Amino acid sequence: MKKVILDLDTGIDDALALSYILGSPDAELIGITATYGNVVIEQGVTNNLNLLAMYHREDVPVYKGIAYPTGTTSFEPEWFVYHGKNGTGNISIPATATRTAEEKSAVDFIIDSVREYGNDLVVISTGSSTTIAAALEKAPEIIGKIHLVVMGGSLTQPGNCNPFQEANMGQDPIASNKMFATDADITMVGLDVTTQALMSRENTQALRDTGTTSGKFLADMTDYYIGVSENDEGAPQGVCNLHDPLAAAVALDPTLVKTFPINLKVETEGPSIGRTIGDPSRLLSPVKNTKVALEVDTKRFTERFMERLLSLVTSID
Amino acid sequence: MKKVILDLDTGIDDALALSYILGSPDAELIGITATYGNVVIEQGVTNNLNLLAMYHREDVPVYKGIAYPTGTTSFEPEWFVYHGKNGTGNISIPATATRTAEEKSAVDFIIDSVREYGNDLVVISTGSSTTIAAALEKAPEIIGKIHLVVMGGSLTQPGNCNPFQEANMGQDPIASNKMFATDADITMVGLDVTTQALMSRENTQALRDTGTTSGKFLADMTDYYIGVSENDEGAPQGVCNLHDPLAAAVALDPTLVKTFPINLKVETEGPSIGRTIGDPSRLLSPVKNTKVALEVDTKRFTERFMERLLSLVTSID
Repeated sequence: MKKVILDLDTGIDDALALSYILGSPDAELIGITATYGNVVIEQGVTNNLNLLAMYHREDVPVYKGIAYPTGTTSFEPEWFVYHGKNGTGNISIPATATRTAEEKSAVDFIIDSVREYGNDLVVISTGSSTTIAAALEKAPEIIGKIHLVVMGGSLTQPGNCNPFQEANMGQDPIASNKMFATDADITMVGLDVTTQALMSRENTQALRDTGTTSGKFLADMTDYYIGVSENDEGAPQGVCNLHDPLAAAVALDPTLVKTFPINLKVETEGPSIGRTIGDPSRLLSPVKNTKVALEVDTKRFTERFMERLLSLVTSID
Repeated sequence: MKKVILDLDTGIDDALALSYILGSPDAELIGITATYGNVVIEQGVTNNLNLLAMYHREDVPVYKGIAYPTGTTSFEPEWFVYHGKNGTGNISIPATATRTAEEKSAVDFIIDSVREYGNDLVVISTGSSTTIAAALEKAPEIIGKIHLVVMGGSLTQPGNCNPFQEANMGQDPIASNKMFATDADITMVGLDVTTQALMSRENTQALRDTGTTSGKFLADMTDYYIGVSENDEGAPQGVCNLHDPLAAAVALDPTLVKTFPINLKVETEGPSIGRTIGDPSRLLSPVKNTKVALEVDTKRFTERFMERLLSLVTSID
């Protein structure tokens, strides 16, 4: 049983990743930290609280992270078209939380949890790196103890914002670069593999066919995502990418991917700002802190993903 | 025993790669095809002929390839500072050939050799891709038969011309892209690994200490390369990269590297022209034609490299 913190910018595929973790018998979700990215942070907090209410899991605390990119005082989601104005494809979450976020900050929750649980804990990041980088900076002694699985970046494929930049790493390249520059144990689950992990309309129909409220919600929300995804130039039709759910799955079972050890940097300026690329200054170092997922067993992942989501939605109503 | 064609833009590390192949008991060099890059093609032809004369190997034929990048009618080496004006670090090759290049074109020599030897042959490319792409275009039936090992590109590290472009792929991005777009079996030995394969002044001194003419020549030539290499920002001191020799070594012994299967493209326009990156349009294809070397056993390579060069120079004078 792995203890899990989800750092989410919820977001359609974030909601699917949360569902995956809640449907995983080998995961204990000890908290969600909200970050910005697909949505502004307040929307992320609300979505997390309402999703947990829908799943009757109001025992899981939600913490608010840092709201804006390093050195800024505002944030507007640039890619909201992919997630709808409310983050869940303009489909309302069919539950309303009776509570608000915890008083404690996300930064302190991450620090305290790493101190308490060490190797029993994995922190899964699916949005901007701002909160996590702040935790590593505030309590550097957790750098040697934390295990991070980051959905973000693209090492061997072009970005999805432009030919260089993947969306999560583009939100706050300074924070992302700080995170990779530490010696923290990081598994990067980027576009290299997440663009191979697909969910189809047949999959969403299977969720709808359960006749459950949550299954119908997930299906409607994801159909929205499929609809906007297939508008992308050259995109496969009738499917969307399971970016965040793959990161969640890899956090629980690293054997789903083959990884490559490297020390990475995130470019913080110039035309390729936000690009994840090898850091030449640490190329010859025998210690590599990041494992980049380059190959993925998509069949095994997708089957397990659908199994766990179907099991979750049918277990609650 | 592997039959080998070297497609060289000779060039200091090309001369070292040629020396490596001539010093390898498991390689039979059936010909050198000259391309442009580190030098203009005429200089490349002359250097190949004179190096073979120095090694008393005038039995190996030299063929002239295509002289200019696709769609152009001239070429000026942009990076000649690294190789000196004559391609061999401004050190004269201590032998003068008594012959000229063959009448047959490099393109036809490659086509005929692949047809004749198939799986027994490996073609090692260490310069621009122009000649090889032309061979694949002229005789598409060799695409399924050729085995290419290409020194060039950079998938997980920045380029060496600029943050995107490696020098060989930058010479003729159109030809390089055509080459990767075929189904040809390609092993890419790029900056990902070649920047980890180093030759030191201790290594050059060992060649000089043999007291041989060719050993002294290789030492002086390579010391020039070390001198200019260590001027690069952030470069390790007292060493140079063994770009082309590593490709030659991998062609004979693929176990020196760990590779990653992918379908690549080379960008042919824009700010990142010349960049090698995954081709999203072929990401979901189950067939991957390129193996990119991402990890290298540098100790085993460097020891073998020095053994074979020392054995070669002491065997001839």
